[in-house]
Amino acid sequence: MTSPNSVQRFVSAPARVAAPDEALSLDELQLAARNHGMPLEALRYDVTPAGLHYLLVHYDIPFVDAAGWRLAVTGHVARELTIDLAALRSMPRTTRRVTFECAGNGRARLSPRPISQPWLTEAVGTAEWAGVPLATVLGEAGVLPGAVDVAFTGADHGIERGVEQDYARGLGLSDAMDGEVLLADEMNGAPLPPQHGAPVRLVAPGWYGMAQVKWLQRVNVLDRPFDGFQNATAYRFKQGDEAGEPVTRILPRALMVPPGFPDFMSRVRIVDTGRHLLTGRTWSGWGPITGVEVSTDGGATWGDAALDPADPGGRWAWRKWSYEWAAVTEGPTELLCRATDQLGQVQPVEQPWNRQGMANNMVQRIPVLVRGG
Amino acid sequence: MTSPNSVQRFVSAPARVAAPDEALSLDELQLAARNHGMPLEALRYDVTPAGLHYLLVHYDIPFVDAAGWRLAVTGHVARELTIDLAALRSMPRTTRRVTFECAGNGRARLSPRPISQPWLTEAVGTAEWAGVPLATVLGEAGVLPGAVDVAFTGADHGIERGVEQDYARGLGLSDAMDGEVLLADEMNGAPLPPQHGAPVRLVAPGWYGMAQVKWLQRVNVLDRPFDGFQNATAYRFKQGDEAGEPVTRILPRALMVPPGFPDFMSRVRIVDTGRHLLTGRTWSGWGPITGVEVSTDGGATWGDAALDPADPGGRWAWRKWSYEWAAVTEGPTELLCRATDQLGQVQPVEQPWNRQGMANNMVQRIPVLVRGG
Repeated sequence: MTSPNSVQRFVSAPARVAAPDEALSLDELQLAARNHGMPLEALRYDVTPAGLHYLLVHYDIPFVDAAGWRLAVTGHVARELTIDLAALRSMPRTTRRVTFECAGNGRARLSPRPISQPWLTEAVGTAEWAGVPLATVLGEAGVLPGAVDVAFTGADHGIERGVEQDYARGLGLSDAMDGEVLLADEMNGAPLPPQHGAPVRLVAPGWYGMAQVKWLQRVNVLDRPFDGFQNATAYRFKQGDEAGEPVTRILPRALMVPPGFPDFMSRVRIVDTGRHLLTGRTWSGWGPITGVEVSTDGGATWGDAALDPADPGGRWAWRKWSYEWAAVTEGPTELLCRATDQLGQVQPVEQPWNRQGMANNMVQRIPVLVRGG
Repeated sequence: MTSPNSVQRFVSAPARVAAPDEALSLDELQLAARNHGMPLEALRYDVTPAGLHYLLVHYDIPFVDAAGWRLAVTGHVARELTIDLAALRSMPRTTRRVTFECAGNGRARLSPRPISQPWLTEAVGTAEWAGVPLATVLGEAGVLPGAVDVAFTGADHGIERGVEQDYARGLGLSDAMDGEVLLADEMNGAPLPPQHGAPVRLVAPGWYGMAQVKWLQRVNVLDRPFDGFQNATAYRFKQGDEAGEPVTRILPRALMVPPGFPDFMSRVRIVDTGRHLLTGRTWSGWGPITGVEVSTDGGATWGDAALDPADPGGRWAWRKWSYEWAAVTEGPTELLCRATDQLGQVQPVEQPWNRQGMANNMVQRIPVLVRGG
């Protein structure tokens, strides 16, 4: 028999941080090849087209047969429920436009680099999610007094740092009952694609991606805090080996559509001298964005971008911004943008390092070569 | 003014091969984060669902307005044509199920590693492409005697090794006129998504991905060989600095659905002792596959897989295979599979190195840990 220890030794090592001179490993590349970011030119779309939205899958994309799918609602409730797809679809529905971002976005730009999915800046996307408010289903089950957390379990199965598990995350009861969280079975007007959680997933607006449990199988109401791996161990802010604080809502970020055209290999942008309208998107899971600043000189000086007056997608969707740039000086420069939200949280120019590379919202830098006309 | 030389020095360097001890660079990671492979569990689908098909974009995904789109058919023809989408859609249509693979698939497993998009094994996918045979449009234009090549130009613009260009590829006249090549405006029954070439792309069944020009703008019939960058420089088999031979059709390959479940970070598979039906897909751009062999002991011994008798998708789509594995011995092993096509071409177990990492069809190896029940 293979003991958990020997499995861990062969295949499932503890988390670690790269050595100062350690370059990207094959393990990290394997994750980068199967997961993917949103190419930043797709910031042009209000709603990210299918296939361009970022995707992170911890284990495998499971095959869940829609006809056989059942959601178990269990635990600290008056009536345990088993809901099939037809029953879910017969309940009152709603649609929300929501910007998602992976909690690990920006991780591969940290130094030293936490070893995990090596995101640069692209782990974002916005979709129209349709489904049934979680509060409706929990209301039908009847949450009992003393409930604390709600745990959501998906069908994807794997092992992570030696712990074999179905992917599961917990959410505090008040967040779960706030009316914003959805059991979603449609993305951009079509049934969920397999990789985004078909047939039903959780959508928790404003939260980083780890809360958006895909291939949902079970909703379990707990009278104690959820202590599963993804809450207690994985998605925490830590500096060392302490327990750390939980990763929750999305910190403010602005991203820019890279102007001009790219070099294939370096992705440096070529921009002609003259006037350019720089545009992008900005969002925060903590509330409205109050300002976006742009620097076209590598961060030496900053100017205010114009925010689109209307926010047609609602409070959980990114907002468009624009900035007029008169590119005069030929040669290399860097374009930066940074967002501030209503809590006064500003994107840092220097890296906000933590041991697992979580919620790194360091400003985007776009290297550009300005060339004469 | 910025000279081409200075642009090249800053942003667009010559092609190179990594030093023996050189790990993956940020440049390579940038490409891996925006392009993506097909997670291999998606080999379970006859037709790859939208968003799971591999994607490689040399420059940016351009925005091409379908209403304003025009295809120019020019050059060595009796009648130059300008075709809009309505005109294209009024012509007789056909649908083909085609397996695509990037010519750079497997590149990052080569040693020394050519520096470019760092694919491992996943740069594949199969789609139902619908549109108008290219031969129909060329027939309407009237190809003149003396025509040699047909050049296809897309809307994606960039610079590559110092050469600024719209992405363009040439195809020999007989290949272009064979009735198999499509001007496709639908993928899997829906309009092309932006990242796959909307509104119209080329589909050349059997050829590696570089021939499948996306965001098609122009079809230009030439009375001389096409000498553009992507034919003359980029997609060539080279050992050093010689001109080399052109990369053309897809060499045979078999891939396996990874059995069991994965470790998040190492992607090693955990499989319980007992019987497992290993399955996968196999294809060649040179003609039917005649056999797939499987090794469950790291390549020491091989057994014949069963090929699905029917090939419902037609001659250009991958074919399913299966193999019964009685996993008895606990501990680590490697699973391999290799295909042979009707020309007798067999996938190599040792790497077929070339300087640009083209058409590397070295066999897939899946590290597995067999554990006791």
